[in-house]
Amino acid sequence: MSSPTALPRTLINGKSCDSLSISDRGLAYGHGLFETIRLSQGRPVLWEQHMERLQKGCERLAIDVPAQLASSLMKDVTQLCGLEKEGVIKIIITAGSGGRGYAAPEVTNTQRIVSLFSLPVYPSDRSEGVKVISCQYQLPLNPRMAGMKHLNRLDQVLARAEWQGTTIAEGIVCDLSGKVVEGTMSNVFAVKEGVLLTPELSQAGVQGIMRDFVLENAAAMGLESREVSLGVDEFKDADELFLTNSVIGLWPITQWDDLCFDKGPETQIIQARINRLLTEGV
Amino acid sequence: MSSPTALPRTLINGKSCDSLSISDRGLAYGHGLFETIRLSQGRPVLWEQHMERLQKGCERLAIDVPAQLASSLMKDVTQLCGLEKEGVIKIIITAGSGGRGYAAPEVTNTQRIVSLFSLPVYPSDRSEGVKVISCQYQLPLNPRMAGMKHLNRLDQVLARAEWQGTTIAEGIVCDLSGKVVEGTMSNVFAVKEGVLLTPELSQAGVQGIMRDFVLENAAAMGLESREVSLGVDEFKDADELFLTNSVIGLWPITQWDDLCFDKGPETQIIQARINRLLTEGV
Repeated sequence: MSSPTALPRTLINGKSCDSLSISDRGLAYGHGLFETIRLSQGRPVLWEQHMERLQKGCERLAIDVPAQLASSLMKDVTQLCGLEKEGVIKIIITAGSGGRGYAAPEVTNTQRIVSLFSLPVYPSDRSEGVKVISCQYQLPLNPRMAGMKHLNRLDQVLARAEWQGTTIAEGIVCDLSGKVVEGTMSNVFAVKEGVLLTPELSQAGVQGIMRDFVLENAAAMGLESREVSLGVDEFKDADELFLTNSVIGLWPITQWDDLCFDKGPETQIIQARINRLLTEGV
Repeated sequence: MSSPTALPRTLINGKSCDSLSISDRGLAYGHGLFETIRLSQGRPVLWEQHMERLQKGCERLAIDVPAQLASSLMKDVTQLCGLEKEGVIKIIITAGSGGRGYAAPEVTNTQRIVSLFSLPVYPSDRSEGVKVISCQYQLPLNPRMAGMKHLNRLDQVLARAEWQGTTIAEGIVCDLSGKVVEGTMSNVFAVKEGVLLTPELSQAGVQGIMRDFVLENAAAMGLESREVSLGVDEFKDADELFLTNSVIGLWPITQWDDLCFDKGPETQIIQARINRLLTEGV
């Protein structure tokens, strides 16, 4: 996601700093959340949506949200980005230090970490189509954690370790009941008989901001949409398939394991809509 | 667990330091492991067992183990502890920085973090008996992660948030299938009709070092032992109940929700054995 060679610049609680106390609950327990936001034309894309997800995640993890968190974060972003037009903003919010063991202090010492990275460099033809594989790793079912972009991401680390190199762009992960959930770093969509399908995420997975954008805009694009619970073979039995996330936008899936697909017409319409968002910010 | 007021002293890779790069995979994804070790009479108790669990965890999380990791850690411990006789040593191993997104670098930049804390201060009568509650939070089933003491500990944080104060000493957590797994920071045992029972941990839970010690020593103490998969009511239907971990040793359970228990004879034998370990190191 981030290139270690280029920019990385970080503010912690508004001050230039690139290290965190080892007693922070973000490190000790993963007691925190993150957002990865596309910077385009100097603007953080879908900022309000990212802030809303962050706020909801803090509530679910009992992390106190300081007054004006979103506006403090926007100040951080403005300070970090300067005249940069393109990049990736990563925000980490942790419950901070304090407390004994797993018990959090009554009011968490919430930490605000904002970093700026260069746009990741992917093969340029990925907007025309990518190859994905089905991962062996299965996500646990966990309704209390589902949907959140929290810092407990060993599931994704273990799934992502199943392939190397750049020929395979993404791995698709099922849950322990065998239902397709998401990609390791993306959400996955199918188009079947004119209906847009994507896995429901009440038991596992991350509710991506770009996923929400696609679902919200589907109707306006003339597409019925539906959240589904399907196995790999059922999900693959589609006319079109694609991946989304906030940084890559949309990648059509043109190969899933041994099965090939065309970049379909609905995919192209949605891709054009996302590209407009990423270039014009609307 | 740790008191922020007293000692805390930390070495990172053998050097005095108390902060970690925000790009570390331990913070970003919880890609790491920890051990909490009792320092008694100047010796880290059950050191080899802690090192063995750490090594196995690194293998399961594809974290490269530097040559001589255990002896480097022992040097760190010696340097940190100095003349201290009693305390808690916390070791964190992370996969370090590097790599893009969830994909780890081919060889991880493994980080070694060792901290010394004062012994936690608990009410002194806990060795005579404690009150525990059944937590509402249910642990996900996840065979790939079960048993490990990794840094993804939101399950424990959310379960531990179910009570405040010191009247309740621990919360007992079931998995999503309703089977008893463990306490939030301890393992749980029952004695029923002369047999020692503890939950099997193939789907969830942390395989505690003190749990292993008790199981290994049960036969020598004249006790048959068995790993079981039981619901709360079945598990509670016991003659004796107790909790163990590496720092507290053993706490008898004298109340679980509304049900009361005596500190039983087998519990006393095992507690005496653990106390000998914690005071004499053998």
